[in-house]
Amino acid sequence: MRTVDVQDLQSLAVGAAILGTGGGGDPYIGRLMAEQAIRENGPVTLLDPEALDDEALVLPTAMMGAPTVMIEKIPEGLEAVRALRAAEQRLGRRADATSPIECGGLNSMIPFIVAARTGLPVVDGDGMGRAFPELQMETFHVYGLSGTPAALADEHGSTVLLETPDNVRLEWLARGLTIRMGGHAHLVDYPMRGADFKRTAVWRTISMAIAIGEAVLQAPHRGQDPVEAIAEATQGTLYGRAVPLFEGKVVDVERRTEGGFAVGQATIAGLGPDAGATLVIRFQNENLAAVREGEVLAIVPDLIAVLDAETGMAVTTERLRYGQRVRVIGIPTPEIMRSDAALAVWGPQAFGLPWPFVPLERRFPDYYRRYGVPKGKEKYLEV
Amino acid sequence: MRTVDVQDLQSLAVGAAILGTGGGGDPYIGRLMAEQAIRENGPVTLLDPEALDDEALVLPTAMMGAPTVMIEKIPEGLEAVRALRAAEQRLGRRADATSPIECGGLNSMIPFIVAARTGLPVVDGDGMGRAFPELQMETFHVYGLSGTPAALADEHGSTVLLETPDNVRLEWLARGLTIRMGGHAHLVDYPMRGADFKRTAVWRTISMAIAIGEAVLQAPHRGQDPVEAIAEATQGTLYGRAVPLFEGKVVDVERRTEGGFAVGQATIAGLGPDAGATLVIRFQNENLAAVREGEVLAIVPDLIAVLDAETGMAVTTERLRYGQRVRVIGIPTPEIMRSDAALAVWGPQAFGLPWPFVPLERRFPDYYRRYGVPKGKEKYLEV
Repeated sequence: MRTVDVQDLQSLAVGAAILGTGGGGDPYIGRLMAEQAIRENGPVTLLDPEALDDEALVLPTAMMGAPTVMIEKIPEGLEAVRALRAAEQRLGRRADATSPIECGGLNSMIPFIVAARTGLPVVDGDGMGRAFPELQMETFHVYGLSGTPAALADEHGSTVLLETPDNVRLEWLARGLTIRMGGHAHLVDYPMRGADFKRTAVWRTISMAIAIGEAVLQAPHRGQDPVEAIAEATQGTLYGRAVPLFEGKVVDVERRTEGGFAVGQATIAGLGPDAGATLVIRFQNENLAAVREGEVLAIVPDLIAVLDAETGMAVTTERLRYGQRVRVIGIPTPEIMRSDAALAVWGPQAFGLPWPFVPLERRFPDYYRRYGVPKGKEKYLEV
Repeated sequence: MRTVDVQDLQSLAVGAAILGTGGGGDPYIGRLMAEQAIRENGPVTLLDPEALDDEALVLPTAMMGAPTVMIEKIPEGLEAVRALRAAEQRLGRRADATSPIECGGLNSMIPFIVAARTGLPVVDGDGMGRAFPELQMETFHVYGLSGTPAALADEHGSTVLLETPDNVRLEWLARGLTIRMGGHAHLVDYPMRGADFKRTAVWRTISMAIAIGEAVLQAPHRGQDPVEAIAEATQGTLYGRAVPLFEGKVVDVERRTEGGFAVGQATIAGLGPDAGATLVIRFQNENLAAVREGEVLAIVPDLIAVLDAETGMAVTTERLRYGQRVRVIGIPTPEIMRSDAALAVWGPQAFGLPWPFVPLERRFPDYYRRYGVPKGKEKYLEV
């Protein structure tokens, strides 16, 4: 049985920031909270979905909104445990496991706080396979699960239990509550049976995030290029090998707030092999499309990560700055994220983009013929 | 055991509008809902607080926000029942009774919908003894009860259970939810034991509202002045006899929206015995102060009602119009509403008024020496 210790959290933070695709919230404060919880209570069991009992009760845990970073005092994260207990009370049953709803960014960490403080295992999988901004943007929703009973808890001791037949309404009500709770809240949503988790989740995303983070952190010690290290770490996963898209220097960032989202684009002037070309990255919290000279290289829900050129660490959209040297990579998303039902929720059109979804494997067939694709993705390599 | 039937609801609507002191929402749509529920299920038992078991579970029911009046279709009011069931589930116990949290306006009706549809009795008392705009403006809050677990339900099938150690925060969170639920929601709050209801509620306000309504509706048949009828109906209650304050014609209404409240003042030019004088009524949803030529005649939490001069029916602040012939009355509030703790929540200062609270009995000692005051209010008549 695999466990996650304090060192794994360090890797997870690095990997989850890359899977955050520019958004998802900085894992830093969540990592401090999870570290403290694991230091006090010992390592957390990371449960492979295969080992999850069909009848187990899984209560996914997460944070909504923007956390207030308190530099003097690391929050204990007991709000998420309180949300869990409220959901258990409603369901009349104790949880057998928790899981992330979102493996990218901050929400990779929250389940480890809950797990360390309650003794529950964390199931190795999530409902986004990356980061997305809203609660209905979940494979759990796409494949028919109810988001409720959901429970929210804030740092003022308030707990709210939500039940609604409509997952979009869950997002609407929970978002309103989060604002009134002071801008952020911990939550449990999509309570489900083990069998439903196995059927609807994106599998093994936490172990993949840890592996990606380890690869990035180890690369300098091995004299390895960090992008090459990420490519190797993703090879053999459900996703498939990360592909280098571009390298260059940030020359322009436009950013505005629309409906609570950070919307805009970054322009990167090519260097090295990309000298003379320009890449534009469109984002709405998360990176949505990478467009080179008018040609779409990668598009949501495939993952687009902007990395520091030297270290390979993720640069979030909010930290994009003029003059940064960056490398941009794409990671193909798993097939469960690409069904018609899934694309209706988070495909390019759902974000108002004018381009259709074209999988990275189809866009870069030579690359993927060379390195291979996971089972189920061979169709993209047919001529 | 007293019961409330469809005819009683008609009287209750008239009386509750007067106790609404200009606000509290028009009881009309609530009355239609309660009538339908009673027609389908039979009369509701109105339980005197004295007859309430100390260990009984009382779940007060109400509506928050502004109801959308659907003229073709009377809502069944099952939202409030759903809120009740959610609270019961949380408490692990079935309710023994419901009650109003607010006897003035629309919220006088909601418990009768719930009671008719569930078979529960309505306890004859409430937490405001009139109408107020916020959930912490309750004797239940003033005298130490928790407003939660509270449950909200909307007409889209969503149910929310709120728990917070702070009743002001309950108001804040519930108000935010109500807005996102479409502008109104049904709720249960201040779940309590019978003994707590007896200790903290304003007693027998529903039977008093029915008596006031009956008096107003019967007055023309008896050739009685409606203000005289109201005075007689209030005499002998915990409140004490209503006192005529002014009569005249509305000559100006200033109204603006501030923080979700209808704030403003109406100016009434005197007629008959008041000819030549002017009365200004300051309001914030409810009438807060009646000021004659700079002299305060009545002030919150004492009740100030503006009545149609002919019929004695209440005129809400939103229906105040230039040219209306009106009569203004004051009703002294019960002592439980006048403690220092109570005045801190709903005294003149809580509404930003520059005047201290002066009880009607002290302002009109001759009137009350003539008609007498309820037990506990004799002190106001001392020189």
